[in-house]
Amino acid sequence: MSISPFEHPFLSGLFGDEAFSALFAEQADIAAMLSFEAALATAQGEAGVIEVGDATAIQAGLARFTADLDALKTATARDGVVIPELVGQMRKAVGGTSAAKLHFGATSQDVIDTSLVLRLKMAAEHLDERLAALIVGFEQLDAAFGQNALMGHTRMQAAIPITVSDRIAAWAGPLQRHQARLRVLLADGFALQFGGAAGTLEKLGDKGPAVRARLAELLGLEDAPQWHSQRDRIVAFADLLSMISGSLGKFGQDVALLAEMGGEIQLTGGGGSSAMPHKQNPVGAETLVTLARFNAVQIAGLHQSLVHEQERSGAAWALEWLLLPQMVVATGAATKTGLQLIVAIARLGKLA
Amino acid sequence: MSISPFEHPFLSGLFGDEAFSALFAEQADIAAMLSFEAALATAQGEAGVIEVGDATAIQAGLARFTADLDALKTATARDGVVIPELVGQMRKAVGGTSAAKLHFGATSQDVIDTSLVLRLKMAAEHLDERLAALIVGFEQLDAAFGQNALMGHTRMQAAIPITVSDRIAAWAGPLQRHQARLRVLLADGFALQFGGAAGTLEKLGDKGPAVRARLAELLGLEDAPQWHSQRDRIVAFADLLSMISGSLGKFGQDVALLAEMGGEIQLTGGGGSSAMPHKQNPVGAETLVTLARFNAVQIAGLHQSLVHEQERSGAAWALEWLLLPQMVVATGAATKTGLQLIVAIARLGKLA
Amino acid sequence: MSISPFEHPFLSGLFGDEAFSALFAEQADIAAMLSFEAALATAQGEAGVIEVGDATAIQAGLARFTADLDALKTATARDGVVIPELVGQMRKAVGGTSAAKLHFGATSQDVIDTSLVLRLKMAAEHLDERLAALIVGFEQLDAAFGQNALMGHTRMQAAIPITVSDRIAAWAGPLQRHQARLRVLLADGFALQFGGAAGTLEKLGDKGPAVRARLAELLGLEDAPQWHSQRDRIVAFADLLSMISGSLGKFGQDVALLAEMGGEIQLTGGGGSSAMPHKQNPVGAETLVTLARFNAVQIAGLHQSLVHEQERSGAAWALEWLLLPQMVVATGAATKTGLQLIVAIARLGKLA
Amino acid sequence: MSISPFEHPFLSGLFGDEAFSALFAEQADIAAMLSFEAALATAQGEAGVIEVGDATAIQAGLARFTADLDALKTATARDGVVIPELVGQMRKAVGGTSAAKLHFGATSQDVIDTSLVLRLKMAAEHLDERLAALIVGFEQLDAAFGQNALMGHTRMQAAIPITVSDRIAAWAGPLQRHQARLRVLLADGFALQFGGAAGTLEKLGDKGPAVRARLAELLGLEDAPQWHSQRDRIVAFADLLSMISGSLGKFGQDVALLAEMGGEIQLTGGGGSSAMPHKQNPVGAETLVTLARFNAVQIAGLHQSLVHEQERSGAAWALEWLLLPQMVVATGAATKTGLQLIVAIARLGKLA
Repeated sequence: MSISPFEHPFLSGLFGDEAFSALFAEQADIAAMLSFEAALATAQGEAGVIEVGDATAIQAGLARFTADLDALKTATARDGVVIPELVGQMRKAVGGTSAAKLHFGATSQDVIDTSLVLRLKMAAEHLDERLAALIVGFEQLDAAFGQNALMGHTRMQAAIPITVSDRIAAWAGPLQRHQARLRVLLADGFALQFGGAAGTLEKLGDKGPAVRARLAELLGLEDAPQWHSQRDRIVAFADLLSMISGSLGKFGQDVALLAEMGGEIQLTGGGGSSAMPHKQNPVGAETLVTLARFNAVQIAGLHQSLVHEQERSGAAWALEWLLLPQMVVATGAATKTGLQLIVAIARLGKLA
Repeated sequence: MSISPFEHPFLSGLFGDEAFSALFAEQADIAAMLSFEAALATAQGEAGVIEVGDATAIQAGLARFTADLDALKTATARDGVVIPELVGQMRKAVGGTSAAKLHFGATSQDVIDTSLVLRLKMAAEHLDERLAALIVGFEQLDAAFGQNALMGHTRMQAAIPITVSDRIAAWAGPLQRHQARLRVLLADGFALQFGGAAGTLEKLGDKGPAVRARLAELLGLEDAPQWHSQRDRIVAFADLLSMISGSLGKFGQDVALLAEMGGEIQLTGGGGSSAMPHKQNPVGAETLVTLARFNAVQIAGLHQSLVHEQERSGAAWALEWLLLPQMVVATGAATKTGLQLIVAIARLGKLA
Repeated sequence: MSISPFEHPFLSGLFGDEAFSALFAEQADIAAMLSFEAALATAQGEAGVIEVGDATAIQAGLARFTADLDALKTATARDGVVIPELVGQMRKAVGGTSAAKLHFGATSQDVIDTSLVLRLKMAAEHLDERLAALIVGFEQLDAAFGQNALMGHTRMQAAIPITVSDRIAAWAGPLQRHQARLRVLLADGFALQFGGAAGTLEKLGDKGPAVRARLAELLGLEDAPQWHSQRDRIVAFADLLSMISGSLGKFGQDVALLAEMGGEIQLTGGGGSSAMPHKQNPVGAETLVTLARFNAVQIAGLHQSLVHEQERSGAAWALEWLLLPQMVVATGAATKTGLQLIVAIARLGKLA
Repeated sequence: MSISPFEHPFLSGLFGDEAFSALFAEQADIAAMLSFEAALATAQGEAGVIEVGDATAIQAGLARFTADLDALKTATARDGVVIPELVGQMRKAVGGTSAAKLHFGATSQDVIDTSLVLRLKMAAEHLDERLAALIVGFEQLDAAFGQNALMGHTRMQAAIPITVSDRIAAWAGPLQRHQARLRVLLADGFALQFGGAAGTLEKLGDKGPAVRARLAELLGLEDAPQWHSQRDRIVAFADLLSMISGSLGKFGQDVALLAEMGGEIQLTGGGGSSAMPHKQNPVGAETLVTLARFNAVQIAGLHQSLVHEQERSGAAWALEWLLLPQMVVATGAATKTGLQLIVAIARLGKLA
């Protein structure tokens, strides 16, 4: 539990963000997967695909379900996905003849992808709040110091004087556009995945589309035809994550340069040194650069995973699992660190 | 002139796309830069920033301008940008007292970025047509073979039978969404860059916004405050480029696998082998995979360039120059190759 | 504790490798950092930089030391590194006048980098054993099936028949070369970092080189001048990690293709499906591809971190922390999965 | 002919390096391919695989050969490789019954990969010279200014004073190690590729190994079993390219920061600005950062191409073509720019 600095016992002080990492706790994943199966039973009960009594029994069973994590781990090693074992455990919890109706017509990827999308949407909603707070933070910074003079620098050379307002506009402008982009995604970019074995919902006959629409509605997701080998929505969200952390990386880089050159910024709460007690390191500013470059690295892998062969690529799909959660948390951590850094700026620029 | 397979004397047969590479010919760049300077003179003349007579003289001078490329090369090596020398050459062509009014209040990045955006917008328009053609191509493929049976494959194993229509939906669906994304960008994603030395249009006084708005209108670009250290619009477009080639890479990978397994596809015009004349290699399909993975690599660099320090980063900015033109051409080539591959499919699936 | 599939409660069944992830547990890190401070005290006691009695007291104090992890987390968030707080805790454990002699002349990066190198060297030694086992595994596979016929495939098309031996040579050959490369690194690629505040060992006067040499000897590392802003050895090791997983990715891709085409391979123990009980998914083979592509993504970030400004870059340095541990574990997991996959091959090729 | 700034009419002033780009001119490629075919005829004549008279005729024919580039382009678009058409043209030049003996037992990849390796080895030799010159350059800088005082900076903050010598050691040390790494590769890392249709040299019977050994000798390459699907030697060289440019990127970043902070460096010949004639931009320093980050992006693609399926992957192989030439030239340009930057340093540090 220490490979990832995002959840490391002490490095997570620097890189962690509970509000986002909690979305990737195994319990959050399992809860989202249960909500898929419960809603599926509801939708199928309403549509007459399964008996209403079965749907009720499934929901009751899921309400008292607790996963056997060790068995899930062993099975995932064998199956490549957690679902066959998890569905087996859930069916045991349901019991009786209703058990077989749980997960009816669905496949592993329906559950895993929908669980992911449910949690990515929550992440997007958190990010929307964080972006709003950052924009307010920059407005306050602007209100406090915007009229101050700042030396403009181009190509690592002093150019001509600008105002602090000018510089803040370059920090806040991209975040405003990212927020607009995020809201477009929130409107229709988080879609239910439901297709069955090979995407055709073949077990639901002509009731497939109606069940899918109702399932989407119950889960608060966009209704869309199955997309299990079409990963563009995932990548579009990941692109935005990296753009957010990238723009905050520019803020961090600028603050670090201001701190190094001195005179135009005063920071509070910088990091201490074991060798040089007099130093005040601009740790938050550097962390923003690190997180920006980290996400800029990861994004390449998401784009590689677009080359997703046939109806389901185990290889390309699992690559997302290795990249996306840490991108989400890195972006969350970047927004958190950005907010802290804004507050840490005790002065910016010089009286004009 | 052979480092890049996109413009290589013989490899460009495979990877080149004239319609897109022409946008990055030095003459196209220079022409776009001239159009910026000419429109700037017009807008400044109209606004009374410069004399109308100067504006007229500037336009006349630019109309007869021919660049001295050798001098541009020498100067770019020294200055890091072509503009100081190019503006010098242009002023010589204008002559007289009007010469000094050319490029008034502008800086290198205004000209270079705007020239880039003008050409990226043309690329986007070409891509919109290509996407439309691809969507039609897939519709025709669907009309011809959609009802045929195809074995669905998940995790590199035969799963259950699907139809050719099901598979085509996975190829065409992302392209439809990419087209919608592209049209959003075409509506407001290509913005004029005009800010002067450090972004403040300080030489234009209170006429800055009006001149900028008119300049944007003359050039057919979105009016927006200067964004020279805010590269998110550039990255958003690059993301889409890589998503387009990535989705076509999935098409290519699927066709290559169909060709390897045989039986469910018949391709015409495959590539020959120097050692095995009997082979028909699915060259176009493989090329799509190559181009997808190529763009997926490059996109990381664009995201790195978001960490753009201060008012202008020579290092981060120039990194775009090394990455973006080839991404545009790779995406163009992918759409071209995709169209050729659709046509090369003589049969898909089996009679149901 | 679930962001990273490498240490996830159930996904680690697929991607985890205890032998490697244990090296990045916080306790392993702290233990290595303690061994640095203890050996430093020894070396400085021997050289007369500190009193022998102080060295003895330091070792006694460290022997009974237990870290306060919560305090480390809080401090790391503030300082950007764990060392100021950890040294404070260690000094408290030592107590008395000797406490101040702990960490004498050293800086945060000395401790953190040396702890990393100590554990990377252990990882390298593990990998050396894994590579040896893989090479033996391929020899055994060759002994069992090498003479069988296999259809050679070039460019996703059947070419001419080869033998299973020919194919195995392409799997094992790179691993043999990787082992040779790894042994070169094991001979001199893991160097002590010891330089003090800005790399000059300024507090040790003319005893600096001798203390450093003895410290390296005590820790089993190469003696080398401080390299805290020279990250090439780190990157060279990371390159090799990605090459190992990349070559195993080729093995996995080949097995997945063999499994998909059928007839020439028989695998045991493939993964089950929740929707299609008849399927046997080549999960291990796909996992190798995933891990190869994962490391190929990460390696870009290590190369970015070579741009390490001045005497110490917080931003570039911390980027390594986010990338390197997971690369090590991914490579370990790839070797483990590769070994399992070799054993799972019940038949390869056809009787000639 | 302008997509790539490495060979652009004016941007190549900044990014080009003739000594390296010349290696990727189509004529250099064709010349290397001819040398392969000529040496193959010699080796096969000596071994009695073909008649000595045929070998002589082949050499005579190749001596007067001129390629029809347009036909090569058309054929490459169809075949995915240039060789079937090029061999046809070469056979026409040879004429008579000897024509059929040209390229005997070889395949496209033998010719293309060997041509690449021949030219990469030349690039490596050039780089060895450049590294030597850089090391000398830093020694001279050290001799001139090494004793000067420089403020050491850690984490973007002034730390403690160091000497210019200390800083130069951090610039030169990695280059010395890179040179050692390069010489290891030069000793045995550039291997002939010769395997025939699927790697088995099946047409040469038991004479395969001897012909291959002699061919390697004639071409000045390492003799090794065919490696066409084992790309690790290629990647190892590319890793080193990116490490070289990365270490020079650190030099560039440090110089840019020195230039920005002022006082401790004096540069001559910096770049001019179109808006601010008073500025002296550290263009060379920024260019080093750009080239370092560029190669750090590209290297990911080379590692992706290790997942090279079966006996020959058109997709993974061609990805190398899109990445490797520009990495070589970028590295060459970085060494050239580094040498220029050393010379441009008129003063470093302050009198102690």
